[in-house]
Amino acid sequence: MPKSATVRVLLFSASLRADSLNTSLARLARTVLEAANATVDWATMNDFDGPSYNQDVETGPGFPPGPRELHRRLEACDAFVIATPEYNASMPGHLKNTIDWVSRIRPQPFNARHGLLLSASPSMAGGNRGLWSLRIPLEHLGARVFPDMFSLAQAHKAFDEHGALADGQLAARFGENLRAFLDLVEAAKHYPCIKKAWVEFLGEPGSTVGRVEAA
Amino acid sequence: MPKSATVRVLLFSASLRADSLNTSLARLARTVLEAANATVDWATMNDFDGPSYNQDVETGPGFPPGPRELHRRLEACDAFVIATPEYNASMPGHLKNTIDWVSRIRPQPFNARHGLLLSASPSMAGGNRGLWSLRIPLEHLGARVFPDMFSLAQAHKAFDEHGALADGQLAARFGENLRAFLDLVEAAKHYPCIKKAWVEFLGEPGSTVGRVEAA
Amino acid sequence: MPKSATVRVLLFSASLRADSLNTSLARLARTVLEAANATVDWATMNDFDGPSYNQDVETGPGFPPGPRELHRRLEACDAFVIATPEYNASMPGHLKNTIDWVSRIRPQPFNARHGLLLSASPSMAGGNRGLWSLRIPLEHLGARVFPDMFSLAQAHKAFDEHGALADGQLAARFGENLRAFLDLVEAAKHYPCIKKAWVEFLGEPGSTVGRVEAA
Amino acid sequence: MPKSATVRVLLFSASLRADSLNTSLARLARTVLEAANATVDWATMNDFDGPSYNQDVETGPGFPPGPRELHRRLEACDAFVIATPEYNASMPGHLKNTIDWVSRIRPQPFNARHGLLLSASPSMAGGNRGLWSLRIPLEHLGARVFPDMFSLAQAHKAFDEHGALADGQLAARFGENLRAFLDLVEAAKHYPCIKKAWVEFLGEPGSTVGRVEAA
Repeated sequence: MPKSATVRVLLFSASLRADSLNTSLARLARTVLEAANATVDWATMNDFDGPSYNQDVETGPGFPPGPRELHRRLEACDAFVIATPEYNASMPGHLKNTIDWVSRIRPQPFNARHGLLLSASPSMAGGNRGLWSLRIPLEHLGARVFPDMFSLAQAHKAFDEHGALADGQLAARFGENLRAFLDLVEAAKHYPCIKKAWVEFLGEPGSTVGRVEAA
Repeated sequence: MPKSATVRVLLFSASLRADSLNTSLARLARTVLEAANATVDWATMNDFDGPSYNQDVETGPGFPPGPRELHRRLEACDAFVIATPEYNASMPGHLKNTIDWVSRIRPQPFNARHGLLLSASPSMAGGNRGLWSLRIPLEHLGARVFPDMFSLAQAHKAFDEHGALADGQLAARFGENLRAFLDLVEAAKHYPCIKKAWVEFLGEPGSTVGRVEAA
Repeated sequence: MPKSATVRVLLFSASLRADSLNTSLARLARTVLEAANATVDWATMNDFDGPSYNQDVETGPGFPPGPRELHRRLEACDAFVIATPEYNASMPGHLKNTIDWVSRIRPQPFNARHGLLLSASPSMAGGNRGLWSLRIPLEHLGARVFPDMFSLAQAHKAFDEHGALADGQLAARFGENLRAFLDLVEAAKHYPCIKKAWVEFLGEPGSTVGRVEAA
Repeated sequence: MPKSATVRVLLFSASLRADSLNTSLARLARTVLEAANATVDWATMNDFDGPSYNQDVETGPGFPPGPRELHRRLEACDAFVIATPEYNASMPGHLKNTIDWVSRIRPQPFNARHGLLLSASPSMAGGNRGLWSLRIPLEHLGARVFPDMFSLAQAHKAFDEHGALADGQLAARFGENLRAFLDLVEAAKHYPCIKKAWVEFLGEPGSTVGRVEAA
């Protein structure tokens, strides 16, 4: 069996504010992933943020630095983990905007890449609805989004002074969730997997309309 | 019966590019709405665009001009109509980002306001999935999003040289859809409607966790 | 101003079990609606339940009694209110199955009819995700689903011995939610609203593919 | 490298009618899967169909035969493939109802099992929205639903007289999609994967509220 050390994971929090609960959760994920021998590329949303998607910019000045950076670092990893807040019962617009940009750069880096989604929120639902809406563009782009997602409810009360989860049972599940994800990434990595040619199926047979449509 | 002339509608295309099919569809909607005696406030996404949502900016420098402009113009209207592209099987990130900002300004202007969603796309599905994802944050914020949505498939071939829909049957439906929406807006406007106090229900009884959570 | 007494509402709980928290919530809704002078047609899911949708049955023996009963009673009302559990992060399959049947009977009764969705659950999220998934088929069929939905969290602890909500603040919101809905129904009812011809927009211009497709 | 022959796949069409386009698509999937050395357990929706979910029946007479059969055959397979129609912009109610029943039987068989979703429809969107709604309960239950889904548009014109896809390009993609799925199933199967203890995360830390809630 290959060692987990070979698995390389891009990890970031999608919140832009300094004192973010999702950044706290991402930090904790880093500890767990590294303890499981994964190599973590730690990033922040500031690294990837960009202006609003505009096809005229894409075909003129070109891709902005933030989305290009996300593209580059995704391509260098086997998998990605995102901890993200929920805004208005859905994913944050700015995170989706960066994904919209990145989806236009080739090779399209979400395709066949494994992803894990986390959220933290002071609410009782833990930001879980945001994760469900985020699955859609990622899976549409071919990402293999792990079914088990971790949504930390009442996150403002959940961390102890060392940044770990105070509740032992929750802490155990968090670890299991991350390690189950790593196992799948590793399994898929060491297999001669057909890299799917990623194309849109909708529309007329034979058409290959891009997924950010010129509309 | 009150005249439709009293209904004031904010109308914009969510696409930022110059030659947008959604802007063409919005232009056509303007013609139809004005023919039905509505007063149209025509806007463009450029009027409302802003940087990525960041709570530290909100509580520091404050709201950016674009979202504040959308807030101001929503408050001055009875209803809104948005024509939007679909990006990656979902709504455009930049449109959601502007909504995220606006949802933080009080009074929260989507609450109890009527909305109609349109889309245009060269694909066969007409951008319809983007509209379904856009309903969620809008309805979460209390907007009364009209159930009938108009998604123009193969939009690159749909317009004649005057900007009307070449297909007569489609043109008729488009008109009916807009007028049915206007009728409902007018009906609701002339009624002594209880303006709902808009609060989050999820979470602990009694809690009023904000909808863009500090997470 | 017309009196609310003219508004007729079909109300039912989608749970089939005897001791259902959603039935308790529906009962409470009945009290509030009648206090607001609405006429309530109280029903149970048993009245509307049917076998699994099968087009061969539809075109052979015909529609089963349960879905026909729901069709008949929807047609006799101005609006509907459903209290429903959440099953597996989505709506109950059996409720959707009944809607699938009813969507095939003409006139299609969800079209342009106002609806309000309630849920109750022992969980902290109150069954809210089930309501979001239920909006989709209803809105697809043209129903005007009220944006504000009431999801009762920790419902097993929420009712007092008279079947009212023990928490006064929650009870007030519940009443406001129902009355705001009634106001909109009444406003729309007394207006000469264009009854939209309900047709599918997706697909080729001019096509009118049915919404339960022969697939 | 282990041989694909070791992979066992449960395959069925969710349509109950005799002359179903989804059953035609499932038949074609069988040919492709067997050509790739998978062992196919062919089933029909009639094998799994059951009455509407009712917790009083579960705790009284017990689980109906159809859902128990689906449970038994899922447990005997490494993966499942479902071809399903779209009803009213969502999944068929009767399919969800069977999933609701099965989700209550232990061990919960969707957990950590790989799944692939197919659809066929005479419309231009190919039933794709039904698949997106179906992902939610399956992923909620821990199924690893493959991101690439195959939606066959204009399915009434798509098959040749041997039941193959007339369009060569489409036929090639269909094969690639199924084989890419099999590769992942095989990779995961031969790996010492931690079988996740499947528990609900939402709600209070420490709570384990069931996913079909007693509501």
